[in-house]
Amino acid sequence: MPPPNPRRRAELADAAIALLAETGVHGVTHRAVERRAGLPTGTAVNYFRSREALLVAAADRVGELHYADMDAAGSAYRPTSASSRGRAVDLIAGSLFTAATTYRDRYLAIFELRLESLRRPALAEALRGLLRRSVAFTTGHHADLGLRIPPEAVPTLVTLYGGALFTLVSSPPGEVSPELARELAGAIVRAALGDA
Amino acid sequence: MPPPNPRRRAELADAAIALLAETGVHGVTHRAVERRAGLPTGTAVNYFRSREALLVAAADRVGELHYADMDAAGSAYRPTSASSRGRAVDLIAGSLFTAATTYRDRYLAIFELRLESLRRPALAEALRGLLRRSVAFTTGHHADLGLRIPPEAVPTLVTLYGGALFTLVSSPPGEVSPELARELAGAIVRAALGDA
Repeated sequence: MPPPNPRRRAELADAAIALLAETGVHGVTHRAVERRAGLPTGTAVNYFRSREALLVAAADRVGELHYADMDAAGSAYRPTSASSRGRAVDLIAGSLFTAATTYRDRYLAIFELRLESLRRPALAEALRGLLRRSVAFTTGHHADLGLRIPPEAVPTLVTLYGGALFTLVSSPPGEVSPELARELAGAIVRAALGDA
Repeated sequence: MPPPNPRRRAELADAAIALLAETGVHGVTHRAVERRAGLPTGTAVNYFRSREALLVAAADRVGELHYADMDAAGSAYRPTSASSRGRAVDLIAGSLFTAATTYRDRYLAIFELRLESLRRPALAEALRGLLRRSVAFTTGHHADLGLRIPPEAVPTLVTLYGGALFTLVSSPPGEVSPELARELAGAIVRAALGDA
């Protein structure tokens, strides 16, 4: 057995994400993942002992990609003279639209895994970890960007954001527009901040 | 072949809903549905030619049950002296909590079907019909109850409600509480009405 290779591991996890989005959770097997990644039969089991381990790896990989993008978005952010509310709407609208288009597979995969996690405790634990990190990260992100969103409002904000994203990624791709993302972002910010 | 029997048809659709919630979409086959409904082998194919027809029947059945309950909730509603906003929060909190507990299977089934609908156009069409009806029904329901929610805000409200419900029904059952449902309902109403 060759030594574990982090890059190969990531390729297999990426193949699992693509399959989750295309076929649903049922299509994710060691064999299908190897084939999708263009790797020889027997590779996947060297990295993931069980099908559950493969699903957990896909969840962790989405987390890794998600935080890398959030960091990049934070660094690319240029302060503007817009109000805190206006900036929050801009950021959330942009984030929703990109998540539902460019990164649609990734979030479709997470929602497939979320439903499957009701039947798989190890997967539920992995997703719970991602959610905790997401709440903590979002709170810090808001502070860095000078958004006045009270930290205690963040779990509700994350729930509404996640729910809106579920609707967007599970809609036919043509129905997702920047305008729809902005309308939902405006509603989410009103939910978090009221009109004040 | 015996003549079609609407009650038997509903029993089969109910069995499909239960299987969707327990096993995910993959567990729904003619054979599994018959077994679950306690009916003889070969019954299901008399009612549903294809597996897709079976999934569409499950979606339609959830719609039928949902509207019957919404009607009952409307009739049972007693006007109170609470503000329009307070009544909207009460109604949405109660509706979210009941949907995520008493009727959890039904809405889990719909979310399984929603993801599957990306791969099945007939199912996508059935769900689109349910959503249109839900927006129209909700608008009428608000008017009947004297809630001052602008009709143009209803699609966003339905999206946020559906998204919050996704999070609740896909959480471990012990994590859903009336307090959490009320917090989300408050946020959804702020999103729809602002603070005014």
